[in-house]
Amino acid sequence: MYELMVELYPLCRSITGNEVRKTDQIISKHIPLELCEVKTGTEVFDWTIPKEWNIRDAYVIDPKGNKIIDFKKSNLHVLGYSIPVNAKISLDDLKPHLYTMPEIPDVIPYRTSYYKEQWGFCLSHNQFLKLEPGEYKVVIDSTLSDGSLTYGEYYLKGRKEDEVLISCYTCHPSLCNDNLSGVVLTTFLAKHLSKADLNYSYRFLFIPETIGAITWLSINKSKVHNIKHGLVATCLGDPGKSIYKKTLHGNDEIDRVVTNVLKNSGEPYDIIDFFPMGSDERQFCSPGFNLSVGSLMRSPYSYFKEYHTSADNLNFVQPEYLANTFSKYVHVLYVLENNKRYQNLNPKCEPQLGKRGIYSSIGGNQYVPDIQDAMIAVLILSNGDRTLLDVSEKSNLQFAIIKKAADILVKHNLLKEII
Amino acid sequence: MYELMVELYPLCRSITGNEVRKTDQIISKHIPLELCEVKTGTEVFDWTIPKEWNIRDAYVIDPKGNKIIDFKKSNLHVLGYSIPVNAKISLDDLKPHLYTMPEIPDVIPYRTSYYKEQWGFCLSHNQFLKLEPGEYKVVIDSTLSDGSLTYGEYYLKGRKEDEVLISCYTCHPSLCNDNLSGVVLTTFLAKHLSKADLNYSYRFLFIPETIGAITWLSINKSKVHNIKHGLVATCLGDPGKSIYKKTLHGNDEIDRVVTNVLKNSGEPYDIIDFFPMGSDERQFCSPGFNLSVGSLMRSPYSYFKEYHTSADNLNFVQPEYLANTFSKYVHVLYVLENNKRYQNLNPKCEPQLGKRGIYSSIGGNQYVPDIQDAMIAVLILSNGDRTLLDVSEKSNLQFAIIKKAADILVKHNLLKEII
Amino acid sequence: MYELMVELYPLCRSITGNEVRKTDQIISKHIPLELCEVKTGTEVFDWTIPKEWNIRDAYVIDPKGNKIIDFKKSNLHVLGYSIPVNAKISLDDLKPHLYTMPEIPDVIPYRTSYYKEQWGFCLSHNQFLKLEPGEYKVVIDSTLSDGSLTYGEYYLKGRKEDEVLISCYTCHPSLCNDNLSGVVLTTFLAKHLSKADLNYSYRFLFIPETIGAITWLSINKSKVHNIKHGLVATCLGDPGKSIYKKTLHGNDEIDRVVTNVLKNSGEPYDIIDFFPMGSDERQFCSPGFNLSVGSLMRSPYSYFKEYHTSADNLNFVQPEYLANTFSKYVHVLYVLENNKRYQNLNPKCEPQLGKRGIYSSIGGNQYVPDIQDAMIAVLILSNGDRTLLDVSEKSNLQFAIIKKAADILVKHNLLKEII
Repeated sequence: MYELMVELYPLCRSITGNEVRKTDQIISKHIPLELCEVKTGTEVFDWTIPKEWNIRDAYVIDPKGNKIIDFKKSNLHVLGYSIPVNAKISLDDLKPHLYTMPEIPDVIPYRTSYYKEQWGFCLSHNQFLKLEPGEYKVVIDSTLSDGSLTYGEYYLKGRKEDEVLISCYTCHPSLCNDNLSGVVLTTFLAKHLSKADLNYSYRFLFIPETIGAITWLSINKSKVHNIKHGLVATCLGDPGKSIYKKTLHGNDEIDRVVTNVLKNSGEPYDIIDFFPMGSDERQFCSPGFNLSVGSLMRSPYSYFKEYHTSADNLNFVQPEYLANTFSKYVHVLYVLENNKRYQNLNPKCEPQLGKRGIYSSIGGNQYVPDIQDAMIAVLILSNGDRTLLDVSEKSNLQFAIIKKAADILVKHNLLKEII
Repeated sequence: MYELMVELYPLCRSITGNEVRKTDQIISKHIPLELCEVKTGTEVFDWTIPKEWNIRDAYVIDPKGNKIIDFKKSNLHVLGYSIPVNAKISLDDLKPHLYTMPEIPDVIPYRTSYYKEQWGFCLSHNQFLKLEPGEYKVVIDSTLSDGSLTYGEYYLKGRKEDEVLISCYTCHPSLCNDNLSGVVLTTFLAKHLSKADLNYSYRFLFIPETIGAITWLSINKSKVHNIKHGLVATCLGDPGKSIYKKTLHGNDEIDRVVTNVLKNSGEPYDIIDFFPMGSDERQFCSPGFNLSVGSLMRSPYSYFKEYHTSADNLNFVQPEYLANTFSKYVHVLYVLENNKRYQNLNPKCEPQLGKRGIYSSIGGNQYVPDIQDAMIAVLILSNGDRTLLDVSEKSNLQFAIIKKAADILVKHNLLKEII
Repeated sequence: MYELMVELYPLCRSITGNEVRKTDQIISKHIPLELCEVKTGTEVFDWTIPKEWNIRDAYVIDPKGNKIIDFKKSNLHVLGYSIPVNAKISLDDLKPHLYTMPEIPDVIPYRTSYYKEQWGFCLSHNQFLKLEPGEYKVVIDSTLSDGSLTYGEYYLKGRKEDEVLISCYTCHPSLCNDNLSGVVLTTFLAKHLSKADLNYSYRFLFIPETIGAITWLSINKSKVHNIKHGLVATCLGDPGKSIYKKTLHGNDEIDRVVTNVLKNSGEPYDIIDFFPMGSDERQFCSPGFNLSVGSLMRSPYSYFKEYHTSADNLNFVQPEYLANTFSKYVHVLYVLENNKRYQNLNPKCEPQLGKRGIYSSIGGNQYVPDIQDAMIAVLILSNGDRTLLDVSEKSNLQFAIIKKAADILVKHNLLKEII
């Protein structure tokens, strides 16, 4: 995942443009991504697909002739969606076009202007403070013209029509945690699942944030009802603990599954209530769709000071944190896949497990092996209504051992799945 | 409010009598109070309006001729509703008529005997311990005779028949927190609301505690069903933090509204469960009425040691605490007035707020202004079922900013009120 | 209770056998126990009644001729249900038949092999480590042959068919907390209740654990529906605090009653969720019966290190702890017996209690006697739906005072029981 991130990092992604296409092509080397283009001017609900933006170069030359801001050094230097400019202007006229972050004066902030045509440069506040009066040359060699919005989609068919949605966004330039971490994790998760025997169908979206989600929902209105559970994948590779932002409903199956996985991970974590700001869950959970979509992250967008700055880089995200989050996503999907209801076929008292060879013949031991404990838990709790997640929660035993116990009991005709 | 309290403090109020009338007349200088008289002997549910009590003077002269207890110095010295007496008696015969508070030996306790005819004096336990044997002269120049019970009522008509009840009691003599604080706050709250454009109708009751509430409910049985929310106003001016005693139901709208206001006040507070003892919520919440009435106080009756003693005086209650509580009552009524349901008219994904000029054109900022945050919150949560209070609770944003966001969205035809 | 425990301690109980019969006979000196015998080979649900086991003697003689393990000194030395053996074998051949507890090296562990025919000895790990190579003589003079399983039952008829089940197990040899404490407490509880006027009927079971519960349920299928509440009595005499293991449902009446009693005891306690492992609640709560059975203990089985070892002896259990637990059981049954619904017959406002002589004539006191407080609580809360337990919970007053208040109000025709 980290290698893919290194490969994707230099591209100047935005909500449209060739570098989004290039991003999708690189992902396509790992999974068979379906690329979609939606033309400028297309109406998507209350919005309209904007013009396509492409940029080749941008810089500022100071009165002494030094190239003091250079897009080639960091694509964050340009206000996203800047219109072309080539002019000589005074410092006073330049200043309204400059964006800095006085509270963290040594980083370049990330700023955009998708829906109002303007141009601008982003720079560190320290650099800004050193600018001297005089004539500056400003060049932005960009084009903003009719084209299309690009997104990638990968659909993996399982036994059921019911879908799990994993969504990430591909509109951020050289920013790692937000959201290249989501892009690479989603890619490898899709790759991982593509080899598995699946109950659910899975839909992986690589879309520009906000406008991409709106576009996808607008085009795919008729498919949306299949989405039963979803996660927005972002901020997955920083050193912070795992944090899960719940669905709007707050106690959906995905909420309980993620809680179970985090609780049983033995690592610190936090579960936080849904809040309206955030990423594409804003669209997926809008009242007209009302999907069950949460977001399993590490440090959410507003929790880390590197957010939307040049400090959200390849040093901030580390392979070990990406791997740890990946493992949690895999666990979550494992629980979702196996969270079935069972009926105890010998419901009056316990069956005698010993005579079937699946229970210790020596009684009186203080410490019962987990698998015996789990079998008793599954038997006593499986009334046909409760799922294995219920059993895991009520018995305080790991979901995996509960699942293993259920498999043994099914094999011995003591349990059957309720379909 | 404090000035009005100073004016009302000297009067020897009880559950009946001229000083209650005088109290109501003083209040009438601020709001158009309707005065009601209910005759002695009138049956009110299980109770009967008692005789009217009036007192002119009362004192005790010790064996040495010193006037050691003097009603003119503190009206708490007389057991409320004492029958007249004019006699010379020994200390031993006097003692059963004396009430003290050994656990706080320097204060005069407040005691009454409304429904059993007897006489008595209240004094500090320190003074009591110094009494020497000998003949005492005791005089109580009171009358207990047919008359009436007096209460005041002020009804403010709003657009709806549905009422909010604010109730305080006017039967305590020189006691400030319990309950002149309630009387003055209720008066000024009524005055404040009388100038406002109101959704709810408001009913302000100035009644003697217990018997007054029973009387009012008995006379107004047919109106009671209009009361949707209520607060008993008492103990509002002491230095303690705000404490809210919940309704019997425990999660009514008034409970959630007060909780929201206290939580957002940024000041310490406590929410406590309903308990059967207390003030007139005992009557309003009796099973035959079962009204949704809580009590927003500072230190409740049993929480401050000055309670029902001469120490509950004009020093104990301070203008700044009264003002703070007043502001909380105003906030509570503001939330109640504006706690409406809305429907998002663009329910599929977010509408594009930027093109309507109500969202920043520059994207990427870490710190979104509260009003943008609030608009997104209102849009995502307004499914026609949720109220603005739900939105405030779920988004952790102040109710006022949520209300402001809703107003903006209504103006742009993105939201409509559900009536 | 402790004396009875001393009397029962030496017997070598198991899930069958004469010493179980002797145990039941000793209990019969206190209560009229009905003794039941179920023949070897009888099918009880998925299980079969095993052969009956009786043992007369058992020992091991070391190569030097010393009797190093002697059943007569501790019946825990023999693996429960050991088949007879009389042989001379080497240490290496003996070792697989020896059971120790390395983590607590100075105690004899308690081990059984009910359903697999084998023989063995239990000894302290310290002793085990000192065994030297050589020829050992091993003798177990036991019989395992057709017979029957014995259990005792005592049914106490109350006014209602609805039953309360108190169940303990009689299959442990010289072990005190687990579970002679349950046997003696259940015996004395039954004796105590036999003199009382009862609403509920009570069923006391003295059964071998697991197989006994399964047997009883199998034989009494048709009676089970009468059991409305139940407690498994075990681990009742150790120095730990009271711990209540909730029913599988988690918020049944018995759960709320026990919580109320423990909370109002003024002593430390814990309430823990149901977990599938444990004692006979595993059978009573199996999905085919789904009874409301919890377990009020002191330190549960797995919480004390003496569990299933020779250290769970007459020193570990002490009379004072047994007495304390007994008192809590009595309280629990008192609340269950009296937890009725009442209707306030004067539902509109409070009735005037003073004129009935049941309320103080002097008003204004800060500290109201509990009984006045309780009467107000009962009146305001008794809407015909709430039980006295609800009133106790909502008012934070002891159940007993609430019950007393209800009795007074019924006497004054202010309250009636809802049947």
